[in-house]
Amino acid sequence: MARAVDVPALVEAARAGSPRAVARLISLVENAHPALRQVMAALAPHTGNAHVLGITGSPGVGKSTCTNALVSAFRERGKRVGILAVDPSSPFSGGALLGDRIRMSDHVLDPDVYIRSMASRGHLGGLSWSTPQALRVLDGAGCDVILLETVGVGQSEVEVAGLADTTLVLLAPGMGDGVQAAKAGILEIGDVFVVNKADREGADVTVRDIRHMISLGERRAAGDWRPPVVKTVAAKGEGVDEVMEAIDKHVAWMQEHGVLRERRVKRAGDEIEAIAIRALRSRMGDLRQGKGVDDLAEQVVDGRTDPYAAADTVVDALT
Amino acid sequence: MARAVDVPALVEAARAGSPRAVARLISLVENAHPALRQVMAALAPHTGNAHVLGITGSPGVGKSTCTNALVSAFRERGKRVGILAVDPSSPFSGGALLGDRIRMSDHVLDPDVYIRSMASRGHLGGLSWSTPQALRVLDGAGCDVILLETVGVGQSEVEVAGLADTTLVLLAPGMGDGVQAAKAGILEIGDVFVVNKADREGADVTVRDIRHMISLGERRAAGDWRPPVVKTVAAKGEGVDEVMEAIDKHVAWMQEHGVLRERRVKRAGDEIEAIAIRALRSRMGDLRQGKGVDDLAEQVVDGRTDPYAAADTVVDALT
Repeated sequence: MARAVDVPALVEAARAGSPRAVARLISLVENAHPALRQVMAALAPHTGNAHVLGITGSPGVGKSTCTNALVSAFRERGKRVGILAVDPSSPFSGGALLGDRIRMSDHVLDPDVYIRSMASRGHLGGLSWSTPQALRVLDGAGCDVILLETVGVGQSEVEVAGLADTTLVLLAPGMGDGVQAAKAGILEIGDVFVVNKADREGADVTVRDIRHMISLGERRAAGDWRPPVVKTVAAKGEGVDEVMEAIDKHVAWMQEHGVLRERRVKRAGDEIEAIAIRALRSRMGDLRQGKGVDDLAEQVVDGRTDPYAAADTVVDALT
Repeated sequence: MARAVDVPALVEAARAGSPRAVARLISLVENAHPALRQVMAALAPHTGNAHVLGITGSPGVGKSTCTNALVSAFRERGKRVGILAVDPSSPFSGGALLGDRIRMSDHVLDPDVYIRSMASRGHLGGLSWSTPQALRVLDGAGCDVILLETVGVGQSEVEVAGLADTTLVLLAPGMGDGVQAAKAGILEIGDVFVVNKADREGADVTVRDIRHMISLGERRAAGDWRPPVVKTVAAKGEGVDEVMEAIDKHVAWMQEHGVLRERRVKRAGDEIEAIAIRALRSRMGDLRQGKGVDDLAEQVVDGRTDPYAAADTVVDALT
């Protein structure tokens, strides 16, 4: 049985800045709790303010250090910051990632910084379903900026990073990241490229490589956004101002061209679709309990019908 | 535009043993071609004969060598053999895997052995949708045995391996596979465990470890299948007879206990569900083209509604 949840009280507490209330709401998202429907309805009028900043890159490029430096920069501006760390590549490492973040962070005691990691629970497509809702919780709870951090450059990382308004792709010299990035489609989702550890040998080569790849991939009209490539040494705070400037420029460009709203409408559409599919799946599950699908499956196994004809029957029964 | 396909001719050619026709049909599956519906209807009466043998294990355990040895053993029994190699962990490596198979195989010129790899096309959940249909093609084309080979021990590998009647999990000494296997749930899907490279140091430890883990995981009633652990040196053909014997025993046990049919009905049900969901997604896509979802998405972005309420509207419109 799902625990009873006092949604209005929880949402009010989260909006008043209670980290425990925010944590509880995100747990509801992780567990696909039935109360989510009520939570999202209560949050709706308070959402749409947060700027979601995606941060992705392979392990070892200094993602935690960069995130930490960016959080400091946003705090200097007086912004409330949420950090959501997701690891789509593993159902197990949610905890480890959170531990990492807490160790790395200068901000663990700052009440205006909320840090949270999310596990995928081994559920295929789970994070692309749950991440937008977790972002919505942080947004509704009054975060001005949400840093959405993902690990690696695989397909599902690209999907998660695609949930951001502005996506930072982190690279480091001599890691062959460029080639990997190109393969995994990270080039297409990167709005700002950051070459961190730029005091290391090969930094300029990496910058040149990535600029070259950006120019190769270009099918841009005049006025389109051209992703800048910024060098940083995040551990020393070098280049952080330039990254912030690049982010500001990207936000200004998106607002000027209506892209920010366009991206958000696209994302909300995806989210609606995912929730609708989930609802239809659940109805289909009921149909399976009721033996409807099993009878058809028996016919398929016996070669008396085929899966497509059977699926038609199922869809007809649902609709 | 999709190319026109003469389905009856293609299915007839595939059933008569044309590798080109089989290849074409599997390409239709990979591309989710509209003619699939007609293909599956034409194949239905001819399916249900093939024994699907799943083979999974980490890179380096000798999967190709084992597969090769098993193919020889099935060919000695006069069986027609299909090999379907899928790599769910990468959208790119389909080709490489096929190359591997062709290099490794003694059977490349044998007309009664059909070898095919399948790429995931970067589509989340793509392989769990397309693999059953590719198996159905090979089944309908007259394969007596289909070896379904997957790489690795991640979540999607487990899903693909779960499409088999009998699943072989390959391990090698000293690779720490045991721990990984336990984590990824391979223990639960393994019907036969094969410790390959058993002439290496540590083979007996690996056998003991895996037996221990099987016994730990047991919640078995009397008469349940207890997965055997077999040692092989596939490169020298050692232990292959024992693996074949273990497979035979598993098939006999499944038939005796009605498990074979049960598994196939369960799988056909999953397949029907996946096709139905796809059809519903496509209707939803039409709804998106028609601006229905976009209007709702705008309302979500403006905080005038929430994604759940919007999803309700979408489901109502579909049903």
